This record gives sequence, structure tokens and C-alpha cells, in this order.
Amino acid sequence: MKIVCSKNDLLAGVNIVMKAVPSKTSMPILECILINAEDGEIKLTVNDMELGIETKVKGNIEEAGMIAIEAKLFAEIVRKLPNDDITIDVSDDLKVKITCQKAKFDLIGLDGNTFSFLPDINKNESIYISQFSLREIINQTLFSVADNDKTKILTGELIEVNGSNLRVASLDGFRISIRNITLKEEFGNVKVIVPGKTLSEISKILTGGLEDMVNISFTENHILFEFDNTVVVSRLIEGEFFKIDKMISNDYETKVKVNRNELMSAIDRATLLAKEGNIKPIILNINDDAMNIKMNSFIGSMDEDVDVDKEGGNLVIGFNPKFIIEALRAIDDEEVDIYFVNSKSPCFIKNEELSYIYLIVPVNINTNVN
Amino acid sequence: MKIVCSKNDLLAGVNIVMKAVPSKTSMPILECILINAEDGEIKLTVNDMELGIETKVKGNIEEAGMIAIEAKLFAEIVRKLPNDDITIDVSDDLKVKITCQKAKFDLIGLDGNTFSFLPDINKNESIYISQFSLREIINQTLFSVADNDKTKILTGELIEVNGSNLRVASLDGFRISIRNITLKEEFGNVKVIVPGKTLSEISKILTGGLEDMVNISFTENHILFEFDNTVVVSRLIEGEFFKIDKMISNDYETKVKVNRNELMSAIDRATLLAKEGNIKPIILNINDDAMNIKMNSFIGSMDEDVDVDKEGGNLVIGFNPKFIIEALRAIDDEEVDIYFVNSKSPCFIKNEELSYIYLIVPVNINTNVN
Repeated sequence: MKIVCSKNDLLAGVNIVMKAVPSKTSMPILECILINAEDGEIKLTVNDMELGIETKVKGNIEEAGMIAIEAKLFAEIVRKLPNDDITIDVSDDLKVKITCQKAKFDLIGLDGNTFSFLPDINKNESIYISQFSLREIINQTLFSVADNDKTKILTGELIEVNGSNLRVASLDGFRISIRNITLKEEFGNVKVIVPGKTLSEISKILTGGLEDMVNISFTENHILFEFDNTVVVSRLIEGEFFKIDKMISNDYETKVKVNRNELMSAIDRATLLAKEGNIKPIILNINDDAMNIKMNSFIGSMDEDVDVDKEGGNLVIGFNPKFIIEALRAIDDEEVDIYFVNSKSPCFIKNEELSYIYLIVPVNINTNVN
Repeated sequence: MKIVCSKNDLLAGVNIVMKAVPSKTSMPILECILINAEDGEIKLTVNDMELGIETKVKGNIEEAGMIAIEAKLFAEIVRKLPNDDITIDVSDDLKVKITCQKAKFDLIGLDGNTFSFLPDINKNESIYISQFSLREIINQTLFSVADNDKTKILTGELIEVNGSNLRVASLDGFRISIRNITLKEEFGNVKVIVPGKTLSEISKILTGGLEDMVNISFTENHILFEFDNTVVVSRLIEGEFFKIDKMISNDYETKVKVNRNELMSAIDRATLLAKEGNIKPIILNINDDAMNIKMNSFIGSMDEDVDVDKEGGNLVIGFNPKFIIEALRAIDDEEVDIYFVNSKSPCFIKNEELSYIYLIVPVNINTNVN
């Protein structure tokens, strides 16, 4: 195999596929990038069996072929080469020569035939959505995916299509994050659970705007994202997602409308008194004048009144401050509405159109109130 | 004590004195910031006994007094308060109330009388230099200070004044970095060893330009930096510095003039093949056509020709690549001259005026040359 690519084109492609390189594995081939120069196309692929990414790179194929090269080293070499044409020349015995201007690297590659290619996908159902919107709804819900995998389903996000409605949701046992978005066309019905890691990586390589579309296809076991010159394939998580509709209620006893930034800053300040590993609840005391934010710890205490428009009765309720801040951070609105039932029931931060719903379970503060 | 300061003024002062907060100590008072509001001045002080910093902050003293507060917590609180006036109100029983707009923090302080104030300094000799120049010569030599303290002297830098010449030097057993600078006036003779940590912190808080001066005073045991509203006092390291003049030689057999960026980039690329913890030498092969840069490791090999103007004989010599890169990075010149004697003797990177001299000891490459 012998190809010539500009450094910038090659680096752009490498940066995309690198997102699928696993951090640790016992199989060297999974840590490789496959360069496949056949049929007039140069394709880069990384596949760790859960998540696979393939992207096309512009360049000249002087001799067709393929080679697998340790991905991190190859990426570093491309990054540090001068801004000029890079030639990759592979001999029959897998010796790889990378040259650019006067710099020459000699490496040993792995046989491309031992590489796990992306699976062939029989698309059952497809939708399309702007890269911008998909990136947004991922980032606005991904934070409440559970990061351990005791319950595998919780490490993924629900992606559900019903006609023109796309719903993305995650929950970790303490909170639920839901985003609804209206698609430009009617599609069928789909309900899958996508690994959080896949969505995290997809959101990093989807750099396009509102006009740049991404096609999403679904099969029994896989989800496929296609955009620009790139294909991302991920395994789905098997099983049935929690029935989140049953967890959502529209009843409330107290509703407050509050400036999002003010509330977020006040809670952020209060958490200074909770040292790491010693999570203290933030106590919201909703009274006739304001919502008082209070934090007590062995370090000291903090309190601050935040102006609110209140509807309904007074209430004292405690929360893990991180959960409130993460939900508020995922919202763009200047003002948010928070709905409460009582000090033992979850609160809901949601808008009228229900384009977002954040449910947060409170903390028992009987022993914490002074 | 009761004072009112604007958030910005208070934060600027806090950020300066925080540089003296030790990372770990068994004495809580050493991790504190002292707020001293007396004689119409508000002073912030942090002192870990090796390095002490004091700075004045604008503000109103409503009631004179002083208090010591845990520095990191206080800094975080000031940072996260709204951009408005901050009131610090201390009761006789050391309760500290910090308020800003509607936010209120209640903390417990420590008695200011238990704080270690900065030592009184009897200045023997003083010089002055621009903040810019001092910051530059520190950053251009500090990287070769030894970071362990088996030989305490090596963890400091030599600062030597002879009339109008200021020399700063550090060495770590493998290399020596020397900077000479001409002061605007004649001063006396001084020769001290200043802890690397002190110089590192000083270089971070010296943000002024060529017109902003810093006064440096010396005593038997201390060095004192005075600039703007800030005083920094550091203990000196006792002992006699190595006789670096005897280590510097002007003889050479081979001299090359090379583009600094080209050489730095080539070596930087080559080090990709040396994984951490497995330092491989970079081999320079100076021949009639060019200087060839070569690196061999179990990962692969890299080589690259760099154009040079050569004077003298051919030479093959090996170096720890990091040492060459750090020296080149500390130089601003587009081209540098490197002087060699033979493959066992140190090389010198220096200019004609000797405003910089970087000595680097080679690595034995007999077993490494292919």
C-alpha cells in the first residue's frame, strides 16, 4: 500500500476515528487504526467491537492495500509532522514508512486482515436530524447516565421515535433527564437504548450546525450514525428501559419561577462548604418572601435569599446540590419553573412545551435542618 | 474587625498571596490567610515560613482588627461571590461573617495573633530590575533546577550581582542554564541561592512589563522582592553554589548554526518513539551535508536531516532529547549556535554576548548506535 494525503486531511480523519480507541484492552488489534486504500477510497477505521468509527480521507492511492497501525502513536506522529503532504508506504512484510518533508518514521504494522471491520448493517428504520440538535439533546441529558454498570441499562440513554417526536432520556436512580424534539418529517416507531459512551463520543465529533444533517439508522442490535464522510456504528444495550412515563407526574403543590443563573450561582457558592466525599444537602426554604438557599457543614454555614414568583404553599426541601446544578446548566432559558409536591417527593424542572423535563429526588433533611 | 472591599480588589490580592499557601502542612495556621486591618491599611498575608507574601488591598476599615481564615476556602468564597462589595465582619469570638449582596457565609476563623508574620528585614544590599526582565530570566533557567532535595543547593538558583551584571544560574547534574543581564545601574556584590519554588511563584505574580520595576533586597538569610503593593520574603538556601565558571569552556571542535524551530520540531517528533519511563537518547550525526537526527526504540525508528552551517569536524553524539528541547525553548533567537568538543564532552548552546549559556552533558550511545 502506498498513499499520499495532506497532513490536515489526514489529521482531521484521524481525530474523528480516534474517539473509538478503547482506553485499555488486551487485544492489540483493537488499539489500531486501519488504513484501507481500495476502490479509489482511503478509509480510516477504529473498532473496539462496541463502538466503531469509519471516515473517508482525501488523498492519492499510489498502490492499493491496507495496514493496521497502533492508533495513538500514529495519531501523535501525524499531529507532529510538518504541515505538508504525508506519504505512507507499506511493504509486503508490514513495514510502514511514514515520510513528510525530511522526516522519516519506520514502524511495524499489523496485518489489516486481522482487523475487525464494521458490521454490515441492514437498516430497519432511519431518521435524520441536524447535527446541532442531536449534539444538544445528547449534552442536555447525558450527565444523568449512571457511570457504573451494575444495571447495564442505566449506562445507556433511551432514544425513542414516535412519528415526528424524538425523545432522549437518561436516569441514574436519583434523577431523570428527558428532552423532546420535533423532527422535520414523520418517521416510524423506534425504541432503543444506546450506550452513554457512544453518545458522548458522537457529540464530540458532530461539529456541524443546524444545516448539517446526520442520518440515524436502527437495527435489532445496532445504531448507525452517518454524516459527512463518517459512519459510526454502536451496539445497542439489550433490555427494556424503565417506564419513565409512569414516574412523571403533573401534580404539584408549590411552583416557583426563578432566574436560572441566580439560583445556579447561589447553589454553586453554597457547595464550597461541602468538601469532596462529604456531600451535604442544599436546603431550599420556600416562603412567602423568597426561596432561601442554605447549606450547613462542619466548615461553616451559608445562606442566601433568591427571588422567586411563588404559586402554592410554603415548603422546606433538601437536594444533592450537584443534581440541581447539572439540570439547570443543561437549560438555556433565562427563567425556569420548578414544581414541588412535598419534601419527600421529587421536584420537576420543566417548561410548558415539555421540551425538557428534569426530575430530581430530594434528600431527607430531617436530621440536617437547624 | 469589619472591612468592606470590592470583590475585584479583594480577589486580586487573594490571588497574589495564595501563591505562598503550602500544599500540605500539619499546622492549620500555615494554611491560613491573615487579614490585617490596622493603621488605615488592609493587608493580606500568607507565610509558610519558607516563603511569605504580603499585599495591600484597597477597602474601607469600619473596625480595625485581624483574623486568620483558611486560605483555600476563603479564596474560593471570594471567587464565587457576585461582582460587588464584600463585607467581612469578625466578632470577638472569631466568628467570621462574609456578606455580598444577598449571600451570607458564616465561618470560624483563627486568632490572628497565632499567625507567623513576615520577618523584619535589615536590607544589606538592594537592586532593581524590570518585572518583565526578572520574569524572563527566571523562566529561562528554572527548568534545570533539580526537583528532589537530596542536594539542597541544586533545588535553588544562583543569583549573583557584580556591579551592573546580574547572573542567574541553575544546574541539576546533567545540565547548566545561565542567563546574564545588564542592570541599569552599578550595585555591589551579592551571591545567594534562592529556592526554585520561590522563583517559580514570583514569576507567576510578576505580571508587569519593562517599565514596572521590582526591588530586590538581600540579607544574611533572606531575599525580599518589593513591587506594586506586594512584598515577597523567602529564606535563602545555605551553602556555597557549585563553581560553574570552571565547568564552562570556550574550546570546541565542531560548531553548528541551526534554525531553532526546525531542530526543536525534529527532536519533538523523534521523542514520540520514546515512551514514558523509557528514555532513549536522540542521536545527532553531524556530517558534511547536514545534521541527522535519529531515534531508535522498540517501537520503531525515526530520522530526519536538519540543515546546518557547520564549522569543524564531523561528530556523532547522543543526548536526552528533553534537555535539548528545554534549552531551545528558553531561547528566543531564530538561529542558535551549538558548540561540541567530542562525543563524551558537554555541548554548549550560547550566543556571542553570552547573555545565555546552556551546557548539556551527552549520553553514552556506544550501545545505541545501529
